[in-house]
Amino acid sequence: MRMSFTGLVPITAAGGEVRILDQTRLPHEVVHRSLRTLEDAAEAIRTMRVRGAPLIGVTAAYGLALAMRSDPSDEQLAEAADILIATRPTGVNLRCVVDAVSALLEGISPGDRAVVALREANRLQEEDLAVNRAIGEHGLPLIEAVADRKDGPVQVLTHCNAGALATTGYGTATSPIYLAFEAGIPLHVWVDETRPRNQGSALTAWEFGQVGVPHTVIVDNAGGHLMQKGLVDLCLVGTDRTLASGDVCNKIGTYLKALAAFDNGVPFYAAVPGLSIDWESTDIESVPIEERDSREVAELAGIRLVPEGTPTANFGFDITPARLMTGLITERGVCRATEEGLLGLYPERAT
Amino acid sequence: MRMSFTGLVPITAAGGEVRILDQTRLPHEVVHRSLRTLEDAAEAIRTMRVRGAPLIGVTAAYGLALAMRSDPSDEQLAEAADILIATRPTGVNLRCVVDAVSALLEGISPGDRAVVALREANRLQEEDLAVNRAIGEHGLPLIEAVADRKDGPVQVLTHCNAGALATTGYGTATSPIYLAFEAGIPLHVWVDETRPRNQGSALTAWEFGQVGVPHTVIVDNAGGHLMQKGLVDLCLVGTDRTLASGDVCNKIGTYLKALAAFDNGVPFYAAVPGLSIDWESTDIESVPIEERDSREVAELAGIRLVPEGTPTANFGFDITPARLMTGLITERGVCRATEEGLLGLYPERAT
Repeated sequence: MRMSFTGLVPITAAGGEVRILDQTRLPHEVVHRSLRTLEDAAEAIRTMRVRGAPLIGVTAAYGLALAMRSDPSDEQLAEAADILIATRPTGVNLRCVVDAVSALLEGISPGDRAVVALREANRLQEEDLAVNRAIGEHGLPLIEAVADRKDGPVQVLTHCNAGALATTGYGTATSPIYLAFEAGIPLHVWVDETRPRNQGSALTAWEFGQVGVPHTVIVDNAGGHLMQKGLVDLCLVGTDRTLASGDVCNKIGTYLKALAAFDNGVPFYAAVPGLSIDWESTDIESVPIEERDSREVAELAGIRLVPEGTPTANFGFDITPARLMTGLITERGVCRATEEGLLGLYPERAT
Repeated sequence: MRMSFTGLVPITAAGGEVRILDQTRLPHEVVHRSLRTLEDAAEAIRTMRVRGAPLIGVTAAYGLALAMRSDPSDEQLAEAADILIATRPTGVNLRCVVDAVSALLEGISPGDRAVVALREANRLQEEDLAVNRAIGEHGLPLIEAVADRKDGPVQVLTHCNAGALATTGYGTATSPIYLAFEAGIPLHVWVDETRPRNQGSALTAWEFGQVGVPHTVIVDNAGGHLMQKGLVDLCLVGTDRTLASGDVCNKIGTYLKALAAFDNGVPFYAAVPGLSIDWESTDIESVPIEERDSREVAELAGIRLVPEGTPTANFGFDITPARLMTGLITERGVCRATEEGLLGLYPERAT
């Protein structure tokens, strides 16, 4: 039986019990886990049972709440923050959330911390959901415009999982897709496998399968050919960090798809929550690109893919230059991928 | 112990016994198989125990020889040709070789066909080896030129396996690499994994490991990032069919790498045996793109990568427009990827 996309919620906290969908078990098993302690939360982030910048941030906030429930002392607060930040050392959004919640809790008496921390985590969760819903509403007209001018389904291509599973719901790049599907617009999504961790084939395909969104998984090599053949109307991707200049850091391989889209006149948009914008930076070279464990390339599900002793390299992200982006879809609207475009939506950031 | 690249020979026919290296078992097992019948040869091509346009052509020639050994009738000759051509639709030289050998055999009496077919297959094998050696000699100066102007190893990127295993020896794209390695030029090769069949991680990495060529396997998503970072000096790929216009049909994903090379000013060459040139065609749209079994995308070594019931699509090739190619390396020299460039090397093809 199909579920509504609003049922795709990878973290819940009803009655103070925090439960996550264990994403390391997808797509073959749907397993939920309760997070009862700080260490449960830290372990879930570290081992990528939860992943995706927005979901990591919210899970970390719940981790602080769990820590405060067992021991609301200053020492425990400081230690919990350190433990959580260390789970994904390159996660900018993770550090921002932990620092902000810690600062809030430091300012109140220990006896109030557990309640306030839980309330703050709930608030962050609701805020993320609202941001994603707004991204969907602003992105929906892009899909509607294609549907208005063509027969047959709107063909969307997406890379990695910028889906409900990466957030508290709706997803970012998937949010316009879900709203279009709900509105009855005929569409079909090409889902990039997204090597080496296969988030596309394991997670995005699972989401779409649950909801019933028509989709086809392809290898990462195939998107250029599809665009040459006129089989893609629109590309929608997520972002891990968007520079103030409009350059978009996202999962490795995004840049290649943007090049193909540009070469074939296919619109290419990133879904950009305001929180993921790095207002301090306009310099692509300044963005550190995480190099992950080379075993992610060498092995898959315990099967060795390369000969014994073969070196592998594993770059996690690349940067798509703003010149290749048609636009950015934020919770405040769609803008061009330029500093002027972003400041038009976030005027409070102008210095 | 390391072998010389001249020892990397995927097909032999000593004393009329045709033996192949079963490439579906690499990189973990080195298994040879004897081809005793036409059906053995057709099965080996169809299931990609042998693959790569030049090796497919030579194997098909041996397939005809095996067919003639059992039954040299006109009917068997025609049927064998049909069976062999149907094994792989995209490569141009499979059909060329089968048509040429068939025409030769049609013109002689059935009693002579088995001997002549075997001799012709042997001749084609030797010819391919000479072509590949010549491609290496013409491509070597491109690597030398980079070595002359930079410190540190020449960084080459290659896609799929246009290696010794794709040919009767030397390879096409790898031939300049092997000659440069033999000449002591410091180099390092980035090897694209090449999903969905992983010919890069399974075959090219295996070849380079056998010979000792320094290399690193990366996912197909990574090449653009490497080129942005200045970590690639030269791209060398193979081709399954090159149009008279200089457009290059090669393994799916080649186009994406060519886009990234063009965007970053990295020279991008295809190694083009003259036999792979389709002189009849300058129209990209006319090239049939093989769609292979979707299970190649859905499964890997028996492990299901996508949720049950998820559709997958599997396009085998794409076409890189000539405008993105720096040049073509043929057995007669290097030329621009244009009709004029190719006709300058093959003037007998001018009409």
